[in-house]
Amino acid sequence: MRIRFLRLGALALAAVWMSAAVAQTDPLPSWNEGPAKQVIVAFVNDVTREGSPDFVPPQERIATFDNDGTLWIEQPIYVQFAFALDRVRELAPQHPEWKDTQPFKAALEGDMAALAAAGEKGAVEIVAATHAGMTPAQFIGLIRAWLTTAKHPRFNRPYDELVYQPMLEVLAYLRANGFKTFIVSGGGIEFMRAFAEKSYGIPPDQVVGSSIVTKFERRDGQPTLVRLPQVNFVDDGPGKPVGINQHIGHRPIAAFGNSDGDLEMLQWTTEAGGRRLGVVVHHTDAEREYAYDRQSKIGHLDKALEAATVDRWTVVDMKRDWKTIFPVRP
Amino acid sequence: MRIRFLRLGALALAAVWMSAAVAQTDPLPSWNEGPAKQVIVAFVNDVTREGSPDFVPPQERIATFDNDGTLWIEQPIYVQFAFALDRVRELAPQHPEWKDTQPFKAALEGDMAALAAAGEKGAVEIVAATHAGMTPAQFIGLIRAWLTTAKHPRFNRPYDELVYQPMLEVLAYLRANGFKTFIVSGGGIEFMRAFAEKSYGIPPDQVVGSSIVTKFERRDGQPTLVRLPQVNFVDDGPGKPVGINQHIGHRPIAAFGNSDGDLEMLQWTTEAGGRRLGVVVHHTDAEREYAYDRQSKIGHLDKALEAATVDRWTVVDMKRDWKTIFPVRP
Repeated sequence: MRIRFLRLGALALAAVWMSAAVAQTDPLPSWNEGPAKQVIVAFVNDVTREGSPDFVPPQERIATFDNDGTLWIEQPIYVQFAFALDRVRELAPQHPEWKDTQPFKAALEGDMAALAAAGEKGAVEIVAATHAGMTPAQFIGLIRAWLTTAKHPRFNRPYDELVYQPMLEVLAYLRANGFKTFIVSGGGIEFMRAFAEKSYGIPPDQVVGSSIVTKFERRDGQPTLVRLPQVNFVDDGPGKPVGINQHIGHRPIAAFGNSDGDLEMLQWTTEAGGRRLGVVVHHTDAEREYAYDRQSKIGHLDKALEAATVDRWTVVDMKRDWKTIFPVRP
Repeated sequence: MRIRFLRLGALALAAVWMSAAVAQTDPLPSWNEGPAKQVIVAFVNDVTREGSPDFVPPQERIATFDNDGTLWIEQPIYVQFAFALDRVRELAPQHPEWKDTQPFKAALEGDMAALAAAGEKGAVEIVAATHAGMTPAQFIGLIRAWLTTAKHPRFNRPYDELVYQPMLEVLAYLRANGFKTFIVSGGGIEFMRAFAEKSYGIPPDQVVGSSIVTKFERRDGQPTLVRLPQVNFVDDGPGKPVGINQHIGHRPIAAFGNSDGDLEMLQWTTEAGGRRLGVVVHHTDAEREYAYDRQSKIGHLDKALEAATVDRWTVVDMKRDWKTIFPVRP
């Protein structure tokens, strides 16, 4: 009896201590106290509290995140584009004709105006030359090798260190509350899979993105997948709800974006009745990162900023709401 | 000291009791003792035991399952096809012209020879008429409603009761050992999502299948996805490794199929070096279910049966290996 009593006492003490510890642990320590943080925390509490009128069962707790500009840096150029340009330089010795052929000439000279002038046709040619003609595993190997050497021109850090610490906390916080977190991005699905698990804790099957056509064949007697220079799916704008439906098969209850390419994903998520969360990351901090919206070609944010008012999405002001931008150097 | 000693003693006793209980619990009670069961259990032990030369970390424990004929019944016609025929009958009053137009005339008259003669073109027309022109949520609603009323012609039970009990045990056994289980089927992705979670414990984002094109638009001011009468992806044969790569992004370490449509998935899974498991369910039990392989159009099994010898896949003989076929009536 004595033993049982002592053990129960110890358990009760442990329980009190643990709940106090939980109450004191801030799940979003890199967020300043303010409306954005409050909205996120209130949403999570409302949908996870048993008996709450807004309770959502765990299997329906789906949250989707854009990648470029929402989870990591996208200025001065998309990271995937920086990879493609480096890859053109690497392959150039095997393609002497590139010195005089657009868009490769522009890529080799770093002539952004000429690259922009080459438009979508030029972009497709660069993707074909740098992203196709190999297996998915080889492609992922190239990206991982590149990430160990390439550095951001301004911050002089590897790109995968330029993820947003406050967003890493949101991802972990949602998962700790039974959410399944997905990337839904205009970026290449295989490109993101190269680092999504390590950087964000998001496994390959929870990455939705744009893709090129892949073909199965036997090569030297081995079953092989080959990446072809042909667009398969563009996971941007109205493509995002389509990609979400195709890959996830559930309508999300929370979505995070930062540009007009996320407009339809945010609408699809929040205009559904019931408790929903829409978040727009607004880049307002030229000192610690970048400040841009309506005038920027990369991360162009105009309609989605208008819609945020109508649809009552939370606009995160990076300068005001985030204590830190990037993780402390590991 | 005394208390600590007693508690340690109790813990040790509990540990002994629990490991004994675990050892005594058969994870595959509907499987007869024999080579098929042995191979599955040995594989799971080898890839999950820490320190084993074949150990595979949990995030790479991916197992893929064909659906028709592997997880549930596919004779005398695919369940999805039975749904389509019932749907044609239901819609017929709105389409008086169908009485004299193929392939609808054949569908209405249950004329299987004429339906077969209508070929792929006919099948596409029936899919367009029965599977498109609505939202994914509406389509799933139709299937769920149909499953509550439709019955299998021979067994007189709802189709979702005609899942294979031994395979349900394999799914649960793999998941209990840290595997993520996926359906990879030639069947429609949304069709399977209508029952996969309830029947197999497989959530919508772990279902890979064939699909038609889906389009995002605003209808009456609401964001809407509409299913179009146009094939998007055929997840069969060489399409299966492509679908696996697109949706899962990991090469599976175990795959289960029953027909030549699973050949490339089984090759892609097992011809990779390292400890792998390939399983072919062979329908050999005309009394309790059906017996068919090389001569059958549905679930045609020829090349994959040959390849099973070469690639050392395990061929499950339903009659010999399975104690029961279907779950006991709930």
